[in-house]
Amino acid sequence: MSSQYYRLEEIASLVQGQYIGQADLRLQGLASLESAQAHQLAFVNGDKYLAQARSSQAGAFIVTASLQAELDNHHNFIVVDNPYLAFAILTHVFERKHTQRGIESTAQIHPSAIIADSAYIGHYVVIGENCVVGDNTIVQSHCKIDDFVEIGQQCFIDSHVTLTGAAKLGHRVRIHANTVIGSEGFGFAPYQGKWHRIAQLGSVIIGNDVRIGSNCSVDRGALNDTILEDGVIIDNLVQIAHNVKLGAHTAIAAKTAVAGSVTIGKNCIIGGGSAISGHLNIADNVTLTGMSMVTNNISESGKYSSGIGLFENQKWKRTVVRLRQLADVPLTQLVKRLDDMQSQIESLESTFKLRK
Amino acid sequence: MSSQYYRLEEIASLVQGQYIGQADLRLQGLASLESAQAHQLAFVNGDKYLAQARSSQAGAFIVTASLQAELDNHHNFIVVDNPYLAFAILTHVFERKHTQRGIESTAQIHPSAIIADSAYIGHYVVIGENCVVGDNTIVQSHCKIDDFVEIGQQCFIDSHVTLTGAAKLGHRVRIHANTVIGSEGFGFAPYQGKWHRIAQLGSVIIGNDVRIGSNCSVDRGALNDTILEDGVIIDNLVQIAHNVKLGAHTAIAAKTAVAGSVTIGKNCIIGGGSAISGHLNIADNVTLTGMSMVTNNISESGKYSSGIGLFENQKWKRTVVRLRQLADVPLTQLVKRLDDMQSQIESLESTFKLRK
Amino acid sequence: MSSQYYRLEEIASLVQGQYIGQADLRLQGLASLESAQAHQLAFVNGDKYLAQARSSQAGAFIVTASLQAELDNHHNFIVVDNPYLAFAILTHVFERKHTQRGIESTAQIHPSAIIADSAYIGHYVVIGENCVVGDNTIVQSHCKIDDFVEIGQQCFIDSHVTLTGAAKLGHRVRIHANTVIGSEGFGFAPYQGKWHRIAQLGSVIIGNDVRIGSNCSVDRGALNDTILEDGVIIDNLVQIAHNVKLGAHTAIAAKTAVAGSVTIGKNCIIGGGSAISGHLNIADNVTLTGMSMVTNNISESGKYSSGIGLFENQKWKRTVVRLRQLADVPLTQLVKRLDDMQSQIESLESTFKLRK
Repeated sequence: MSSQYYRLEEIASLVQGQYIGQADLRLQGLASLESAQAHQLAFVNGDKYLAQARSSQAGAFIVTASLQAELDNHHNFIVVDNPYLAFAILTHVFERKHTQRGIESTAQIHPSAIIADSAYIGHYVVIGENCVVGDNTIVQSHCKIDDFVEIGQQCFIDSHVTLTGAAKLGHRVRIHANTVIGSEGFGFAPYQGKWHRIAQLGSVIIGNDVRIGSNCSVDRGALNDTILEDGVIIDNLVQIAHNVKLGAHTAIAAKTAVAGSVTIGKNCIIGGGSAISGHLNIADNVTLTGMSMVTNNISESGKYSSGIGLFENQKWKRTVVRLRQLADVPLTQLVKRLDDMQSQIESLESTFKLRK
Repeated sequence: MSSQYYRLEEIASLVQGQYIGQADLRLQGLASLESAQAHQLAFVNGDKYLAQARSSQAGAFIVTASLQAELDNHHNFIVVDNPYLAFAILTHVFERKHTQRGIESTAQIHPSAIIADSAYIGHYVVIGENCVVGDNTIVQSHCKIDDFVEIGQQCFIDSHVTLTGAAKLGHRVRIHANTVIGSEGFGFAPYQGKWHRIAQLGSVIIGNDVRIGSNCSVDRGALNDTILEDGVIIDNLVQIAHNVKLGAHTAIAAKTAVAGSVTIGKNCIIGGGSAISGHLNIADNVTLTGMSMVTNNISESGKYSSGIGLFENQKWKRTVVRLRQLADVPLTQLVKRLDDMQSQIESLESTFKLRK
Repeated sequence: MSSQYYRLEEIASLVQGQYIGQADLRLQGLASLESAQAHQLAFVNGDKYLAQARSSQAGAFIVTASLQAELDNHHNFIVVDNPYLAFAILTHVFERKHTQRGIESTAQIHPSAIIADSAYIGHYVVIGENCVVGDNTIVQSHCKIDDFVEIGQQCFIDSHVTLTGAAKLGHRVRIHANTVIGSEGFGFAPYQGKWHRIAQLGSVIIGNDVRIGSNCSVDRGALNDTILEDGVIIDNLVQIAHNVKLGAHTAIAAKTAVAGSVTIGKNCIIGGGSAISGHLNIADNVTLTGMSMVTNNISESGKYSSGIGLFENQKWKRTVVRLRQLADVPLTQLVKRLDDMQSQIESLESTFKLRK
């Protein structure tokens, strides 16, 4: 799409690596090993991609020194310690930038809102009372920034995002399309067979460098705030209920639900499709594999699971039949009884032999 | 945020309780026991919060008479039978109200639509042919109210909601941001290796006092209607397929999917992340715990489950290995065989003793 | 709603069937057997609906020849080989059509975009640079069509849809409300305790006759594209991660998550609430039942499962206790040990008898 290029030497310097080969080789983009052409750069993410790399048509390769030594049929390289990180850095070089600044004429902005001159406010954005939008922040079309919401600097808010509940966002926050931040938490007092709504009075506080995918829901707190600390990353279609607290640099994969008042520590990785029950505490450095269900506190860091992988359907049906019997089978006694009976038999046998 | 206040005596009267202490104590809001300050009111939701309550800085406490007796270091109370309900009622007193009325100049409203004078229609709302919006209903910015949709009185429809499929909403219905009501059900006739779309001709009928969270999908029926009876409450990211019928006052937690033509009774509680297969009937007063999967009718009220809680990962792996063996282990026979063998051994032993 | 009618004879010809009865019977719509009235047509989808059909008030019935023979209390029929398919075809005859063409005055369209004269662009739609919208395509209100997105002919894009990431859509594609196509994939390089964003440079390619429900997320690829082949159908609230490839005519039910770089074959059926881990390959003609979790490649077509159906809660609790013991019970050895002990006992018995 773009005809802009970078020279091999320049790219090496962007990722603090060494180049090998033709310093002025012109490279116009990144591509996968399979699809890369002579004007493109590919990265080799470990030994298992060496065969693919050997037959790749890429103009140059991002590699470690040891990978480079294995690729003697190629001539142009960027040598770094961490090719995946170098690749991550270079995606920013080649991505299409949003350069527009200013406020589209169709945006509706309350006079009390403060919008930085360097921000961009797209078509049909609606911004309420006392809102703040920081420097170089991009707010795409159709967003709703409700009263008292504040957004820091260099944020990216994609189309159709709803920010409400007086949410406060830090700097460099990215929120993808159609996500809702600060909507009302699911709080009801049951009384005489009906549900009595508890208006939610808390807010949502989002730190710096937080990333939230598309179609997510992050609810405002009931009294205190829902809190996402710095560096939290969240995939698509994730539910974060009221009064949840997510520790710094925790990652949550798609379609996970975190129920109300859960506290998750720092540097956790929550697999996709997981569900965490309300009012639980999860320690730092916890990894949950996909489709885990958490119903108790987790006080030790480590890896935990409860999702069951696939069975052939007929075998699965027979397995579930057994599972339905399991409650009435005293499993731990079985082994003990077997051991006891074994002793009895052996005792009988030996007595029997003695009396021969 | 607000400088408005209520006197202790006034608050007691709002929740039909008794005040103890200083009648004219000024209270400006609700807060949690931990964070409350002298101008705020906190509630004590049972004995287990007594320690927190004793050390709280709140100006006054909502309590039962027996809780009050335990808090002799404090002086100002609202005494009620049900503090949680009183708290729920007071959240409405202290929440920020939407007071605007009328139609924003940027809203696009079909001439055949009937909008109550006391309604509020936000910026960039689009309202189609023959729609109705009732008294005191708030429709926030960017909503799409498609042709033939009718909304009752005192409803709240948050931003980016899509109401289509000629949906009919009762009174006091609340629909949170980015939810879709009345979109096309997932109906296809398979024929010669392709899927043939079945245009959906039914609608969605929503009763009074229904609450639907953000990012939910409620599909219109194929021929008959999808029905949500009075008082149903639904959390975020919930799927309600075509021709589902939800009984009055049933509650559904986040990320649940209810498949087509399911009927759920009244006063049910469906835990988060559950999935209910198509064409099933679920009785009144059924509770499902989190991540339940329903594949058969439930004819008896009661509590049901199938979600498995977390294991340490290595133990889980060994558990799944056993689970994969389970189909071929005749569990119920094991115990019987053990019993039989025990008899045989005892018989051998006794015969043996007799012959000594 | 509509007063238009079709004669029985006309309807028979629309579905290439035979009519029996009154050729000029006027029919105004389709209805279910229970609710149909004399001016409506109902279909009988097999023997199990015969009792309902006999007591139905429908004016005419879509049936097979053998079903017709069983319904001698009725007089008007459309006889076809496949009543369900005929019904699917007729829903299109009776559905309300969107007849508006042209561009609403409030739409914001970049001068470089090419919009077919026969397309409809709704209120407050925003269309970016170099976009294409094909003949007879309907784009409902508030959609965001971001730069370089291309949409084919006869597509239907409902309100609040976000199309971004330079996505390319084929012909007759239907995308329901509030869905996001082409948003950024969830790619981060971990380094020194932080997540480093990988800007996503690939796109999304969607074939002809693809259907995507409401509130779905389909992410753009990291380098290569995310691909949905012709005839794929997807229900609501489904996550399709970056670089997924879905084979032609595969169907995915609601609330399923397909993780990054998964390839699913043709003609698969993925049950609701399923989750498929990253980088897996699934063969053609695979069926997954509801709430399946896939953690390994599936190389054989067939039916697979791992979701557990419901238990009464107390029994479930006891079952989970046993499940937690299962890792330490040598299941396959148990049966072998029982067999061994049985032999020992029998040997003892026979020796004993011999010596009597």
